[in-house]
Amino acid sequence: MHSADLHGRLVALSAFGRPAGGSFESGVSRIAYSDADVEGRAYVMRLMTAAGLQPWIDPAGNIFGRRAGTEPRLRPILFGSHIDSVPSGGNFDGDLGSLSALGAMEALDAAGIRTRHPLEMVVWAHEEGFAFGRGLACSRIVAGEVTSADMNEVWNGMRRADAIRKIGGDPDRILEARRPKGSHHCYLELHIEQGGTLERAGVPIGVVEGIVAIDKYDAVITGFANHAGTTPIAERHDAMLAAAHLTVAVRDAVTRLPGRQVGTVGHIEVTPNSPNVIPGLVRLSIELRDLSPQKLVAMMDDIRARAREIAANTQTAIEFTQTMRAAPAGADGDVQRAIERAGQTLGLGTSRLPSGAGHDAQMMAQLSPMGMIFVPSVGGVSHSPKELTHWEDCARGANVLLWTVLEMDRT
Amino acid sequence: MHSADLHGRLVALSAFGRPAGGSFESGVSRIAYSDADVEGRAYVMRLMTAAGLQPWIDPAGNIFGRRAGTEPRLRPILFGSHIDSVPSGGNFDGDLGSLSALGAMEALDAAGIRTRHPLEMVVWAHEEGFAFGRGLACSRIVAGEVTSADMNEVWNGMRRADAIRKIGGDPDRILEARRPKGSHHCYLELHIEQGGTLERAGVPIGVVEGIVAIDKYDAVITGFANHAGTTPIAERHDAMLAAAHLTVAVRDAVTRLPGRQVGTVGHIEVTPNSPNVIPGLVRLSIELRDLSPQKLVAMMDDIRARAREIAANTQTAIEFTQTMRAAPAGADGDVQRAIERAGQTLGLGTSRLPSGAGHDAQMMAQLSPMGMIFVPSVGGVSHSPKELTHWEDCARGANVLLWTVLEMDRT
Repeated sequence: MHSADLHGRLVALSAFGRPAGGSFESGVSRIAYSDADVEGRAYVMRLMTAAGLQPWIDPAGNIFGRRAGTEPRLRPILFGSHIDSVPSGGNFDGDLGSLSALGAMEALDAAGIRTRHPLEMVVWAHEEGFAFGRGLACSRIVAGEVTSADMNEVWNGMRRADAIRKIGGDPDRILEARRPKGSHHCYLELHIEQGGTLERAGVPIGVVEGIVAIDKYDAVITGFANHAGTTPIAERHDAMLAAAHLTVAVRDAVTRLPGRQVGTVGHIEVTPNSPNVIPGLVRLSIELRDLSPQKLVAMMDDIRARAREIAANTQTAIEFTQTMRAAPAGADGDVQRAIERAGQTLGLGTSRLPSGAGHDAQMMAQLSPMGMIFVPSVGGVSHSPKELTHWEDCARGANVLLWTVLEMDRT
Repeated sequence: MHSADLHGRLVALSAFGRPAGGSFESGVSRIAYSDADVEGRAYVMRLMTAAGLQPWIDPAGNIFGRRAGTEPRLRPILFGSHIDSVPSGGNFDGDLGSLSALGAMEALDAAGIRTRHPLEMVVWAHEEGFAFGRGLACSRIVAGEVTSADMNEVWNGMRRADAIRKIGGDPDRILEARRPKGSHHCYLELHIEQGGTLERAGVPIGVVEGIVAIDKYDAVITGFANHAGTTPIAERHDAMLAAAHLTVAVRDAVTRLPGRQVGTVGHIEVTPNSPNVIPGLVRLSIELRDLSPQKLVAMMDDIRARAREIAANTQTAIEFTQTMRAAPAGADGDVQRAIERAGQTLGLGTSRLPSGAGHDAQMMAQLSPMGMIFVPSVGGVSHSPKELTHWEDCARGANVLLWTVLEMDRT
């Protein structure tokens, strides 16, 4: 594979959704179903056509391209990523995996290699959780989580059916986008890590062990709003103070156990939120992530126990509501080992790690063995114009993807 | 004084600014300069006229009424309060002291008592800190803190000059509202406590030692916004976690010292405030109150020291900006003793306490000896429709005001 091509194409793709007057470093806003998304998809399909892949769009809006294998009865090896972005996102999240999938196809052509399995590349539509308030939307359809009624959802004045039609899908045939379990030999995805673990460890290739489970809660803290000057400390029912103790308790519950679990209080609403009034009501979000759902439950049990003490000490009431539960998706052991062998072949160190972010790969894990390859994110920054993966690391990841395809083709 | 009159008048005044379809218990929104304020002021002036007081409005919009004394060369004893309210406020804050001042005038008439000093009652305009973002606005003018340019301030689409004209003031002559130091013998104000100290102690009359100093700060906590799933705990620069520790540190700094000081974190703004993003920026308010400005400085020094540790531990930066400093206003010792003698005369227990809230009395303390009488607030609730002082406590307070006027008339 020519790494110069990969570099040039990442730069060319970055033009679709670039801020006016900006450069590659200005990041990108290529929201799913936007004009920029449509244009970026057309660019990738032109490249696929030039590579002889005859791209097609499934009813959900996902772009596929296929290369025949020598043993047509074998199931295809599927690999790819997405090209939609968050608002003010970066130029590597999704783009790298999508263009590297194409590059793998071209490299095999250039080397005159015929695989046993058919190869299928995919550019998933609508991966980011911005449009319609939920991500992994079109791989989710392929995995079977869809009803015709979903096409009636409205976001930002746009019906979902119309959104899917805009990118070339066919909402009237949406159920035909579903694929059965076992429809592929395996699914592979190259992606930037979006965290700083690989860069810090100086390891170029991450072998994903799985995609973490996520539990989300809303905490509602009820105190009593009163005058900040006339209410003695002992008489206060300060919901903000309780929220502060609870935020510290979340961090304590997360760090008390060994492991790589994380927990975040990212959202808070305070009422009345006036400097001279003791807050009477606070609502905050708690998000916990780990590969082990049991560990998430244990952390939340710990947080609940601390919350009871905090409520008693601050004379407030604290109630929790679970707002989301995402199951973990384990990467297949054979695929992980195939990635590691690919790294050895190329002389690249590998390290196993969980994916703290969601990926289309977790949807595909419902259908067939799944594996993901991570490359380092500089400073662990993502979902930001400052998102960066060095060109040599991009090329290394693309080569590991290619060699993992070949490793999996043996099986 | 007839307590039935006081009760009836509080109820009658509550109609001006009452929520549509509500009752006395629904509270009041009688914002300064609103139509409800104008109507409430007209009602009080009708009562004053009926009592033979010939009310007049000074250039700042304050309502005055005067009763002659037997020794015209003596300076007047001034007493009163305000009748404007916060949005969704209660029916006792200000109203009680204003109507009790009128009641004291009437009671002296009814009893045929002539005082040595002339007596002046006042209903201050614009006491609450809502209109034009600042309170004690018109007593402040009388105390001399005013320039003609202040009349050009705009709030809510209204010029301050027009606002003052609306309530019968004369902004073109605003400087003539100023009164010189020593223009009164003393200033007295009856007010609800707005805290729960008197009710809890079972004491009907509070003797205010002074009005607390207030220091306000903005804290800006700068971290780094990043993905809540992919950013390991050790790599985080979590501004929300730092804000939580800082909020706890404020409470600790306040409770570490003996005394009745208070401190509040009432306002917080989090950026980007999304459940799946580690907060990168938090701005919060810190408000400290105590009679001693030195204690406020000591508490803030403590908070700054803790903030340095918190910033280091959370990998954030914390900066403070002072946004307000209000000097304390001490109540005069002779006036405090006069209030206590009035309580003894009436067989009512008294207790000294600071005022944690600001009052027009602190402006008048710049001109002459000042004293304030507090009555219990049920549950310490204020600035709320639930604000309540029992009728017998209102009447007790009004009687103590009357007897304090007589006590001060002896000096």
